[in-house]
Amino acid sequence: MSDTHEQAVSLEDIVEARQSMQGVVHQTPLDLSATFSALTGNRVYLKTENWQKTGSFKIRGAFNKLRCLSAEERSRGVIAASAGNHAQGVAYAAAQAGIKASVVMPVGAPVSKVMATKGYGARVILAGEGYDAAYRRAVELQQETGATFVHAFDDQAVIAGQGTIGLEILEVLPELEAVVVPVGGGGLISGVATAIKTLKPDVKILGVQADGAASMAVSVREGAIRELPQAGTIADGIAVKRPGSLTFSIIQGLVDDIVTVPDEDITTAILMLLERSKMIAEGAGAVALAALLTGRLGLSGKRVAAIVSGGNIDVHVISQIIERGLVKAGRFVSMRTVLLDRPGALGRLLSLVASAQANVISITHDRTKPNVPIRQAEVVLSLETRDSEHINQIMELLVREGYCVERL
Amino acid sequence: MSDTHEQAVSLEDIVEARQSMQGVVHQTPLDLSATFSALTGNRVYLKTENWQKTGSFKIRGAFNKLRCLSAEERSRGVIAASAGNHAQGVAYAAAQAGIKASVVMPVGAPVSKVMATKGYGARVILAGEGYDAAYRRAVELQQETGATFVHAFDDQAVIAGQGTIGLEILEVLPELEAVVVPVGGGGLISGVATAIKTLKPDVKILGVQADGAASMAVSVREGAIRELPQAGTIADGIAVKRPGSLTFSIIQGLVDDIVTVPDEDITTAILMLLERSKMIAEGAGAVALAALLTGRLGLSGKRVAAIVSGGNIDVHVISQIIERGLVKAGRFVSMRTVLLDRPGALGRLLSLVASAQANVISITHDRTKPNVPIRQAEVVLSLETRDSEHINQIMELLVREGYCVERL
Repeated sequence: MSDTHEQAVSLEDIVEARQSMQGVVHQTPLDLSATFSALTGNRVYLKTENWQKTGSFKIRGAFNKLRCLSAEERSRGVIAASAGNHAQGVAYAAAQAGIKASVVMPVGAPVSKVMATKGYGARVILAGEGYDAAYRRAVELQQETGATFVHAFDDQAVIAGQGTIGLEILEVLPELEAVVVPVGGGGLISGVATAIKTLKPDVKILGVQADGAASMAVSVREGAIRELPQAGTIADGIAVKRPGSLTFSIIQGLVDDIVTVPDEDITTAILMLLERSKMIAEGAGAVALAALLTGRLGLSGKRVAAIVSGGNIDVHVISQIIERGLVKAGRFVSMRTVLLDRPGALGRLLSLVASAQANVISITHDRTKPNVPIRQAEVVLSLETRDSEHINQIMELLVREGYCVERL
Repeated sequence: MSDTHEQAVSLEDIVEARQSMQGVVHQTPLDLSATFSALTGNRVYLKTENWQKTGSFKIRGAFNKLRCLSAEERSRGVIAASAGNHAQGVAYAAAQAGIKASVVMPVGAPVSKVMATKGYGARVILAGEGYDAAYRRAVELQQETGATFVHAFDDQAVIAGQGTIGLEILEVLPELEAVVVPVGGGGLISGVATAIKTLKPDVKILGVQADGAASMAVSVREGAIRELPQAGTIADGIAVKRPGSLTFSIIQGLVDDIVTVPDEDITTAILMLLERSKMIAEGAGAVALAALLTGRLGLSGKRVAAIVSGGNIDVHVISQIIERGLVKAGRFVSMRTVLLDRPGALGRLLSLVASAQANVISITHDRTKPNVPIRQAEVVLSLETRDSEHINQIMELLVREGYCVERL
């Protein structure tokens, strides 16, 4: 972890990082999205770091940090604290370099991420509730063992590694006018801003945080580093309570604006990427698009690159997002009604539903519920619908036909 | 629909189709997958037609068919029958060409696909239960209106359009040794086999069908077209009861083998593409990988292209696949137990679960259930786990601690 501010990261550092990582780190695609261009009135290009090795951009910074170690430092190994992507990036980069890595992950970190980190060959220590406690334990272990601490963002070599994304974007799209970047601790945007503002000072650098973890946005607005009492958002990859000091000063100098988005808009963006672009993004990976889709960035008619920073989202969470997203869009409804428990009653109900062109997803039919009168049965219907108006039509039809219907 | 067999599709037809579709149809990536290479012992490249316009390869054939129409035919419009991808491909290609399109879709087709087809500007007629009834209605409408029928697979121009995928694969990977292709009616594999066998006769052309819709596999084995009484599989895009006659004869001549895979392996492949490759594939799009993963193709150490033919999967289905896939892999478990309904009882249970390093996904605590004794409460726990052995450890721990536990 660097505490020296006198020397910021330079373009040369980033160019050197890029040369060194050829063959280890993917140059991910930068693809024009017809869907998001049409929806936002810009030409939107997605920089798909969700398809990076280990599923996020973090391997770039970790690889570059490890490359800069001396032989003696390599022999003592490295240590990091992370609940997710940085853990996998450090573990993978260390395995490639033949360096021993230990990663402290908080108790309760997703099993899939713990297993992936172990799978890359790192020693995983589960300690503490949440990132901060894991971080403290990692610092203790660092002091006991003399291993090199690989900070997730507040480190010059890490920032230079993340900055290689800026070089790749400019190379493919030299006519770039704005880049939209997820911000947690600030490592990614610090590197990208350094690369792009040095080469093309007119390109707008726009950061996006989650409403529930807006530490950098608040710090920049108030002109001094502020620590949040807590950070809670579905975008767990950017749920950082306290910005880095190095990243804070780079961002103050180079970033044009930082906006924030609510979790609701983040889940909508994840669902749109899934349905329209056929890709998986994690919460942090979807914030740049969420900000574009809701017009918060004030961009119109511009050539914009949005960084999809990672795709390591728990599959349980995907299930939940799908269900909530569909409910919100009126594309899914659950309703309860009571039927006389006699032959044909359920069939009649289902014919009515079919006549309204709703598809049945599931039915439960229960006559044992204590609050349902004898000889009647409770039916819970889950339906696929077009939109909220379609739901209203179905409900009205059923009421008109004598059913007492409760929407769940 | 072509009934003439004397002239098969030629390489020249496919080359011409490819030239004509530049700028309209994407040249999709052909990406080496480290994950699937390691798992199968081959070098596996994914041809990602799930990222094609309209979400599947079907636009290639539809575009090429429409291109071949005379001015007079164009003025009368086109008609097609489809429950999904072909509908969208025809609608999109027709809109691009300024041709009126009608598509007959079966009643109960997914709302999202109906809306997408309408969104591309086609007139949608909902008719019949299932594809066959919709097809019959489309043939009637064709006779009434004089519109040109665009068959989903049994048509020379359509086959030539799909064959452009073969040209793209060989161009990027000239050292190709085998290509694995999903098979429904047979249009895609007929085109791909024509392109590749003409240019590189040594490349193996391998088809994959779903166990529940193996009409082409059965027909090839028996040497004559066979119609299945029904076709049922999660891979709805290849659920075809009767092969095309043109496609059947091309496949007899050019395809090295056709294997079949069960739905269970298809859903596993969908889940792996989602978690590991961060991409969405539909059932038909995942069958080639399913066959590779289960070793059914007998390939080892080969450079293999697997065609991921489409990504138009209902998001409800994704949710279900995630949940069933995790249960099967032992990464998710639900269990029921009964607690004394007093302060601390639930906390004690949760501490035990935490000590076994399982993460709680959901809890329901209910003391009103009629079958639960007074002053006791039923608890249903859903847990994220590592594997089946981990689940056993948790169950044993709880039993040892005096809980009566039932796995759900």
